[in-house]
Amino acid sequence: LDEPLEDISVDTIASNAGGLLSPALASADLTIAVDNNDTETIRKIIASLHPADSADFLRELPIQKRGVLLRALHAEMLSAVLSYCDETLREEALYELGVEKLASAVAELDTDDALEIIDELDEEDQQSILAAIPTEDRIVLQQALNYPESSAGRLMQRDLVAVPTHWNVGQTIDFLRGTDDLPDDFYEIFVLDAKHKPVGTIPLSRLLRTRRPAELKAVMLTDFRKIPLQMDQEEVAFLFRKYSLVSAAVVGENGELVGVITVDDVVQVIQEEAGEDLLKLAGVSGQEDFYRATFAETKARFWWLFVNLFTAVLASWVISLFDGSIQKIVVLAVLMPIVASMGGNAGTQTVTVVVRALAMRQISKGMAKKVLLKEGLIGLINGLMFAAVAGIISWFWYHDAWVSFILGAAMIVNLVAANVAGTVIPLALRKIGADPAIASVIFLTTVTDVVGFFAFLGMATAFLL
Amino acid sequence: LDEPLEDISVDTIASNAGGLLSPALASADLTIAVDNNDTETIRKIIASLHPADSADFLRELPIQKRGVLLRALHAEMLSAVLSYCDETLREEALYELGVEKLASAVAELDTDDALEIIDELDEEDQQSILAAIPTEDRIVLQQALNYPESSAGRLMQRDLVAVPTHWNVGQTIDFLRGTDDLPDDFYEIFVLDAKHKPVGTIPLSRLLRTRRPAELKAVMLTDFRKIPLQMDQEEVAFLFRKYSLVSAAVVGENGELVGVITVDDVVQVIQEEAGEDLLKLAGVSGQEDFYRATFAETKARFWWLFVNLFTAVLASWVISLFDGSIQKIVVLAVLMPIVASMGGNAGTQTVTVVVRALAMRQISKGMAKKVLLKEGLIGLINGLMFAAVAGIISWFWYHDAWVSFILGAAMIVNLVAANVAGTVIPLALRKIGADPAIASVIFLTTVTDVVGFFAFLGMATAFLL
Repeated sequence: LDEPLEDISVDTIASNAGGLLSPALASADLTIAVDNNDTETIRKIIASLHPADSADFLRELPIQKRGVLLRALHAEMLSAVLSYCDETLREEALYELGVEKLASAVAELDTDDALEIIDELDEEDQQSILAAIPTEDRIVLQQALNYPESSAGRLMQRDLVAVPTHWNVGQTIDFLRGTDDLPDDFYEIFVLDAKHKPVGTIPLSRLLRTRRPAELKAVMLTDFRKIPLQMDQEEVAFLFRKYSLVSAAVVGENGELVGVITVDDVVQVIQEEAGEDLLKLAGVSGQEDFYRATFAETKARFWWLFVNLFTAVLASWVISLFDGSIQKIVVLAVLMPIVASMGGNAGTQTVTVVVRALAMRQISKGMAKKVLLKEGLIGLINGLMFAAVAGIISWFWYHDAWVSFILGAAMIVNLVAANVAGTVIPLALRKIGADPAIASVIFLTTVTDVVGFFAFLGMATAFLL
Repeated sequence: LDEPLEDISVDTIASNAGGLLSPALASADLTIAVDNNDTETIRKIIASLHPADSADFLRELPIQKRGVLLRALHAEMLSAVLSYCDETLREEALYELGVEKLASAVAELDTDDALEIIDELDEEDQQSILAAIPTEDRIVLQQALNYPESSAGRLMQRDLVAVPTHWNVGQTIDFLRGTDDLPDDFYEIFVLDAKHKPVGTIPLSRLLRTRRPAELKAVMLTDFRKIPLQMDQEEVAFLFRKYSLVSAAVVGENGELVGVITVDDVVQVIQEEAGEDLLKLAGVSGQEDFYRATFAETKARFWWLFVNLFTAVLASWVISLFDGSIQKIVVLAVLMPIVASMGGNAGTQTVTVVVRALAMRQISKGMAKKVLLKEGLIGLINGLMFAAVAGIISWFWYHDAWVSFILGAAMIVNLVAANVAGTVIPLALRKIGADPAIASVIFLTTVTDVVGFFAFLGMATAFLL
């Protein structure tokens, strides 16, 4: 029992290949090896690299060379590298390697990584890959594919370490030493009752610090987060962040343990959600994918610009109502974009702050009124300031006190409208279950353009003509 | 040696207080206890809650009641709750509790959490708090305060587990069981050479799965990331994300181990950086703080609007160059905002995509030209499409083929300019060491306004008059 264990079956590629080569050095050698189609050398270098670095190298290779690298790897290496690749690279891998080989690589992965790859394929490819995967793994994957997209069920991995309540620390350690089929990396051990429900958890640091005879019951932490299978990944990320979790149990309908979510997956989610909010606010639709092809990217931006065109035409229509005034006082045409532009920018500030606060769960139910008041006040203060500044500028330009006065008054009206609309729009969208990031700015600029032009040109028509 | 260890000194408040109360139930009882100033009950309930939930409760209390709750807690509880509070709450805590009591709470915290609290105070308060902290802890904190802001040195904690190379697994486990003064939670053990340099690392799962006589030298992973003290936190977050790290060694100038960064701190950084980019792009300056007071928030938004005003005036000046044309053909005033608006929006899409890609390190050195080409092409394609759509709309409106033609031509020019500027501006800002998120949109809208009005009004003047 106390002999050294010869076979330490933790993934040797990913973490302990000696690290003899720096990524930069390896990169030069690897380029030569790929050019020469030298499978042996490619394998040797890839084995010495962290798979994340290999994935980087793969992305920087010219497209026509990527197949050479991919085909040179055996299943275990391939699966490690693929788990660090983005969607575009993975689709290419399927194309280069064919279903059989990709399936054998996917079968090597943890459930969550395997799922991520399969999920991105179209229905037909999914089925072929699944068919080529060993039955046991396949069943697990098919089950996971039935959970709603972006749910905890999709994010979790099935491989975990769980032990019964009546064990002690010594038995647990012996079990860990004696079992080969454990996850690559784990941070806590779950303690299960007879019905497979988790009743406690033991962080590994705690297990290591406790002597062998101690009962698990006495050592385990009983206050821990259980994540339901159906929980949305955004909510999962929120829990991890709030409670500083490193891993968490996922439970089924009857409270039984079905999987574990680890922080590395959650980091990915946080990163993605933040990026998606950013892009959505700027009107780039769909999933974040910087390496997307030009045409797909053009399409991802087209529709927002299309809707925006109609917003702009609506603003033009407002202007056209006053074309008589403009013809008489052309200064109005010169100054009117200032009011609209300032409103659009102030409102975008507000929308962004509110969308971000919603994403961070910082606006609880009773707070909407408070936020509205604060934003309205900010709009009013900045409106007053910029009424003064813009009024002074226009006075030096045109020496017409009435024009300056109307410009300033329109500025106040539009900045208050901008901040009120910038608060109400995302909150209302959230209330009806829509995504506040994606449409808020369009509605907002409609408001600020229409109010801005209407206030300025309307007051000018009333007072100057 | 094999007796059960009575005292399991892992933080009992944070994680193992029984979890008897749900946060919602506790909240009602706690409200009553705070109203009655009932210290005993407050302590009992807080002890049963996760400190993250207590921090939430504190934030939702009316301001004048928060002092009651804070004063009821003893140092250990207080430090746990404070480590989950935001800046505004912490400043309030200092005000409510006074230096002495806050210092005793801060002394209980891990270096990184303590630092975060101290860092936010002004110079004078910092010095008073530091003076009230026990010498040993104080020296560590003062040292850490000397590292550059946002560096790995600020992010790391000093408490870690490190053992010499010549030990075996059994010795390491005995050391862990026999030492009281270990960090609350740790995920790997560092193996140090005689010069205190880390030569290997052992994830706890690996240590647990290895039998006692195995030499650490044989078990440890030698390929691991070492983070220099000076590394920027954004870079640290990038490494954690890229290599899916849970913790990482921080090394000093001579390669000696000085601390460890854990993933929970990095999650915070990722969250903050993403939020800051979002707010900066929208022109809200400074650190993200949704609970900031109205006046501070107004100020945070003022300067961007101020700069934007001059951009808008510049655009107005361009329009004023053509006021003669507008007076003759008032339709120009009606249609001109369409060109500027579409350019601004298309350019913002590009700026956002590029800023995000820079933050995600997706644009390597040689790629700038490729990105510029792609973006220019997207601008051209969308320009052609919207030239057609806008041309048709304006034709139905004004039945003037020349006006439609000029509107379309200006649209193409401005959308290409928008996408080229949207790429070049953030890349150039990054090149000169400026933050591409904060100023890009201002420069961009200057370009799209000036180019948009100039192209449309200029062509109209040349062809229509």
